[in-house]
Amino acid sequence: MMLKDCQLVIMAGGIGSRFWPMSTPEYPKQFLDILGIGKSLLQLTVDRFRDSIDVRNIWVVTSRNYTDIVKEQLPEIDAEQILSEPCMRNTAPCISYAAWKIKKKYGNVSMIISPADHIVIDVSKFDEIIRQGLAFVSGSSRILTLGIVPTRPETGYGYIKSSGISEAGDPVCVESFKEKPDYETAKKYFEAEGYYWNAGIFLWQTDTILNEIRKNEPEMAELFESAVPYLCTDGEQDFINSIYPECKNISIDYAVMEKTCNAYVIPSSFGWSDLGTWGSLHERLSHDKNDNTSVGGNVKFVDCSGCIARMPANKKVVIQGLAGYIIAEKDDTLLICRLEEEQRIKEFSKY
Amino acid sequence: MMLKDCQLVIMAGGIGSRFWPMSTPEYPKQFLDILGIGKSLLQLTVDRFRDSIDVRNIWVVTSRNYTDIVKEQLPEIDAEQILSEPCMRNTAPCISYAAWKIKKKYGNVSMIISPADHIVIDVSKFDEIIRQGLAFVSGSSRILTLGIVPTRPETGYGYIKSSGISEAGDPVCVESFKEKPDYETAKKYFEAEGYYWNAGIFLWQTDTILNEIRKNEPEMAELFESAVPYLCTDGEQDFINSIYPECKNISIDYAVMEKTCNAYVIPSSFGWSDLGTWGSLHERLSHDKNDNTSVGGNVKFVDCSGCIARMPANKKVVIQGLAGYIIAEKDDTLLICRLEEEQRIKEFSKY
Repeated sequence: MMLKDCQLVIMAGGIGSRFWPMSTPEYPKQFLDILGIGKSLLQLTVDRFRDSIDVRNIWVVTSRNYTDIVKEQLPEIDAEQILSEPCMRNTAPCISYAAWKIKKKYGNVSMIISPADHIVIDVSKFDEIIRQGLAFVSGSSRILTLGIVPTRPETGYGYIKSSGISEAGDPVCVESFKEKPDYETAKKYFEAEGYYWNAGIFLWQTDTILNEIRKNEPEMAELFESAVPYLCTDGEQDFINSIYPECKNISIDYAVMEKTCNAYVIPSSFGWSDLGTWGSLHERLSHDKNDNTSVGGNVKFVDCSGCIARMPANKKVVIQGLAGYIIAEKDDTLLICRLEEEQRIKEFSKY
Repeated sequence: MMLKDCQLVIMAGGIGSRFWPMSTPEYPKQFLDILGIGKSLLQLTVDRFRDSIDVRNIWVVTSRNYTDIVKEQLPEIDAEQILSEPCMRNTAPCISYAAWKIKKKYGNVSMIISPADHIVIDVSKFDEIIRQGLAFVSGSSRILTLGIVPTRPETGYGYIKSSGISEAGDPVCVESFKEKPDYETAKKYFEAEGYYWNAGIFLWQTDTILNEIRKNEPEMAELFESAVPYLCTDGEQDFINSIYPECKNISIDYAVMEKTCNAYVIPSSFGWSDLGTWGSLHERLSHDKNDNTSVGGNVKFVDCSGCIARMPANKKVVIQGLAGYIIAEKDDTLLICRLEEEQRIKEFSKY
């Protein structure tokens, strides 16, 4: 059953530097068929909501460099619903832009904020949580964030600590947000109760987020208030282009989530990954008996273990004698590096 | 000074399987600019003789699959001088074909037999040895082979043992030929005197080799005798196509060199390599301070040592954390393998 009036905002402006060379600033991760299944992560994100959100209620906020890619990948979405950022300013301005525009067009409605580059395995479970969450925020000033129940002591995600323990999966108050922990701390979080991975998926009413921005980032709120006369008019893009660079470069987590008293978390288990690293992609793909995995190309592993290869479709590849390596090629760029050194990929991409 | 009447036969029919994926059966090693200097190994071979052999006296024997490549790479050589083998039959039939044809056209003259895919660093020293060698075989029934003075205990080459020790670099009798040795044996050869690498370069008079083939491979001799009426006529290729498959698949080493009593070896030091392995190519190229080397592409080694990368010209490559690996790409095929496993490349090429 479609969720009436609920507006979905997909944030698709990232540059995915950790997935170089597959992901490039010209064509980043969210637009790639990173799992090798024939759809980009952005397309999979839209698919995930296809049964609950009318396509007319889906918004995509992206860099102006990517609007053409979004239009190409999501031809069913009206160009009016694709919001174009003139520069990168993190998630708070992105969400503000969408929220002020939705407010002008639809008033105070339910909103879902979702990244464009994550994966969800159990979509029906996901849908259930979204519906439960929307009921929870409806008609209130609550902010709800989806907290992924940890399945391992992961050091690559931020954590949400709940205040008390959720009963029967109901939302509970957020006590605090935790930065990416070291391994020892991650182990403690994993063993304790009430710690969740911060998936960056938010549910709220339009007025809630507007008020939170007004309260916590008044300058940003003022910029978007000044834009209201132009939103949904021919002058919108020009005006946005003029104010966007003035916005503080700040995430919604820092701008709002860590400051508000209205944050709740709903424990969620639906097979989630932000696919933020080659390691997390490696985990999500099926492996041969030596824990090797490949997407694309015709890849033969010989005496290899724990490797991930991502190759162009027509490529024939023989890899011998590697343990724990990334082998990735796109266009005319090839990367071979240790999986455990993948945090240096951004550095490698600059050579 | 040009060597009058001397005929040079370049054998260019190999498939270079050990250099896959750069070398493929469609376009093998001898036709590649394997050193990245703008000329193929075949072109370098011809260049090596440019000051001593008139281009009208240069013959290239190759597979019929490669005659077009030879014509393209050596436009200065008359198409009549490019002999086309209808099938692969190793070096004895290849040399016989050339020798019988040269005999018919020029009678009993000096001949030089050279592989197409080796490199020589000191070309003037090489030229000196060739001239000295030709004087030695001239007007005699001697067979002279160039014996490379070993510079290391190499296990990848066959050896020639001389009978006694050469004085002042003069040719000496061959006592025996030795198969590729194991490391211990190679060390003994290296430390002893009178052992040379078999470079597969031969000098003789036409009649000498014809008589040796007649004596040691009478059936092969008979086949080529039967071809004489057709050689240098329009019927040559058809006739060769009909008899060639009948020839024994045998090297000149087995067919003649190991049996004859007329074999001599001349000690030679001119910086030679058969470039038969990635390892030998690695040795020949200049290295960075960590012993990495690359040909083609824009290759950046990070935390690497002892690696060799051979990449297409426009490729950008970052390689991190590898020690002792080959990374080679051609067309749509990529090989990554341990240098010490390179003897398995033929196997890898079949995946």
